[in-house]
Amino acid sequence: MPRYLIFSEGQFGTPASKTGNSVIRYSAGHVAAVLDSTRAGQRVQDVLGYGGDIPVVASIDEGVARGADALMVGIAVNGGGLPAEARSAIARSIERGLAIWNGLHTFVADDPELGPLARQFKVEVRDVRRPPADLPVGGGRVREIEQTVVLAVGTDANIGKMTVMLQLRDAMRSRGTRATFAPTGQTGIFIDGWGICVDAVVADFIAGAAESLTLEAARTSDIVLVEGQGSILHPGYSGVSLGLLHGSLPHALIACDQPTRKTFRHNAWLPIPPLGEVIALHEAMAHPLRPAKTIGISLNTVDMSERDARAEIDRVTEETGLPTTDPVRFDAAPLVDAVLAFDAERRAVGAGAVR
Amino acid sequence: MPRYLIFSEGQFGTPASKTGNSVIRYSAGHVAAVLDSTRAGQRVQDVLGYGGDIPVVASIDEGVARGADALMVGIAVNGGGLPAEARSAIARSIERGLAIWNGLHTFVADDPELGPLARQFKVEVRDVRRPPADLPVGGGRVREIEQTVVLAVGTDANIGKMTVMLQLRDAMRSRGTRATFAPTGQTGIFIDGWGICVDAVVADFIAGAAESLTLEAARTSDIVLVEGQGSILHPGYSGVSLGLLHGSLPHALIACDQPTRKTFRHNAWLPIPPLGEVIALHEAMAHPLRPAKTIGISLNTVDMSERDARAEIDRVTEETGLPTTDPVRFDAAPLVDAVLAFDAERRAVGAGAVR
Repeated sequence: MPRYLIFSEGQFGTPASKTGNSVIRYSAGHVAAVLDSTRAGQRVQDVLGYGGDIPVVASIDEGVARGADALMVGIAVNGGGLPAEARSAIARSIERGLAIWNGLHTFVADDPELGPLARQFKVEVRDVRRPPADLPVGGGRVREIEQTVVLAVGTDANIGKMTVMLQLRDAMRSRGTRATFAPTGQTGIFIDGWGICVDAVVADFIAGAAESLTLEAARTSDIVLVEGQGSILHPGYSGVSLGLLHGSLPHALIACDQPTRKTFRHNAWLPIPPLGEVIALHEAMAHPLRPAKTIGISLNTVDMSERDARAEIDRVTEETGLPTTDPVRFDAAPLVDAVLAFDAERRAVGAGAVR
Repeated sequence: MPRYLIFSEGQFGTPASKTGNSVIRYSAGHVAAVLDSTRAGQRVQDVLGYGGDIPVVASIDEGVARGADALMVGIAVNGGGLPAEARSAIARSIERGLAIWNGLHTFVADDPELGPLARQFKVEVRDVRRPPADLPVGGGRVREIEQTVVLAVGTDANIGKMTVMLQLRDAMRSRGTRATFAPTGQTGIFIDGWGICVDAVVADFIAGAAESLTLEAARTSDIVLVEGQGSILHPGYSGVSLGLLHGSLPHALIACDQPTRKTFRHNAWLPIPPLGEVIALHEAMAHPLRPAKTIGISLNTVDMSERDARAEIDRVTEETGLPTTDPVRFDAAPLVDAVLAFDAERRAVGAGAVR
């Protein structure tokens, strides 16, 4: 894992710094500093309310002095291309020997100035949205491993699928369980230092990418937590979500929902069906390849009062009969317990018997 | 539409010439000649049993003399790259002013020799597997048109989805119906002269590509027949198939099956579920976005005796209650009637009332 200087010039602490914020939340030990000259001198804790003493600095050189060995570029950009400020920060980082971890759609290695510069200074460039060159077509290879595979699915895109898996990973590790996270999007890749943006691969290889990720994550763990993407009912992204389901072949699903969200992201014309229907559709679509059981519900209650959030968690628990929580706001334990109980039961029955 | 010289050197009449054969079957008027020096002097009819007097020739120059204005390269290739014989044929074609329609994964326009040569001779290069640069993310735009949209879906990949739509197109046109075919794969693109290989687009844009194709096809027709791809249960390709369903938002589905096929293509570990289950899953996955009704069954009985084929068609008709036929071997009429009846009913009720 690198030690990041997170590029966030002019936007740290705004909604545009969401990617960097997640990296700080789930991989704080790998963040040396945040670059935002307008906030320089503050601590991350002061800006975000978490992140502790990680400093906000005004320059690449200060970031290097704080121990960074990589520049992380995960900013929100309007339109294509590299913003001028990012470009000059990347150039200076290369000259100072930092690796470049870039989440933009525009690849640094292909840039006519920055690409050659990186090669000249022999620094590593990780354009994390660039798919691997040699992906296979999916073919059910995950059946060959014994590890328990859990996938986060959701009623919509951008609803907490990455977050619940990271909360589960951290909670399980603190209980001594060998759990790994399989990152399928740019933020997850920054956080865990590896992975594939499955929405950026050529369509024929979605399931193959998910398969490769799951097998890789299984090499060092007993439980694989696969980051979900999109929703199998999202008008734009459903293909990605289904390929992920059929490539990772999960034994168990965690279903994610945001109670206040009534229509699909960027698709106000389309109501989100009731949670129970979405769960049933996932199980029906998984079943012919390998049965998957929904074992818990993760609610994103960020925009609800605490009282409403607790009432909604109770209501959903009652309605579905499944352990339900907001793993960020309250406690991930009900979902951790659900995964561990499922895993123990699977192993007791014998992996063969339950497929 | 171009007038093709179909490159089939050393393989015309073998299984490797499948793409060219389909173009001859469904677009014979646009085929000037077939290039295969080992068969030169024969008629296509003599080799395939259809295709009439289209000549097989030994050289590019002979193809030009027969009126070709484009070289079509749709051969099967082991591994990547351009085979030497294809490369020299493409070079000679460019020098003779033929457009290049290339279905290989290796793009001619990007080739360090052929790309510049094509630009020098100012010939058009259509690398049909290259996705358009400006695809949108899918967002339900097909809801805005009034045309009836029909999608071919299937129990597996490579089972007859393109074929049934082309049979329907031809039969409807001969009855005076304005029906268009929306090509989603390389063979369909060669046949109709336009389209997008949806399995070659970046995963985030599958539904957007399907949407764009459906809207384009609707501009000149009353009924849009969307070529299906893969299967929503295929371990490798399900994402493509679901994106196609959610992008094209069909009103009606034609379900395709091959009765003798018991497991998924290249996935012998995975049994194909019963046809009724596959139909129910398609309708369940379409419903939240826009309800789709399965209105007919297309069986591929190529590997059955005529007696067995007729018995199977009767059995499936009985079991599903839906018009069923093998539209190539027997008659597409039951499916044509089903589509026209569905379209008439939709229009009678009013497009609004039935969405």
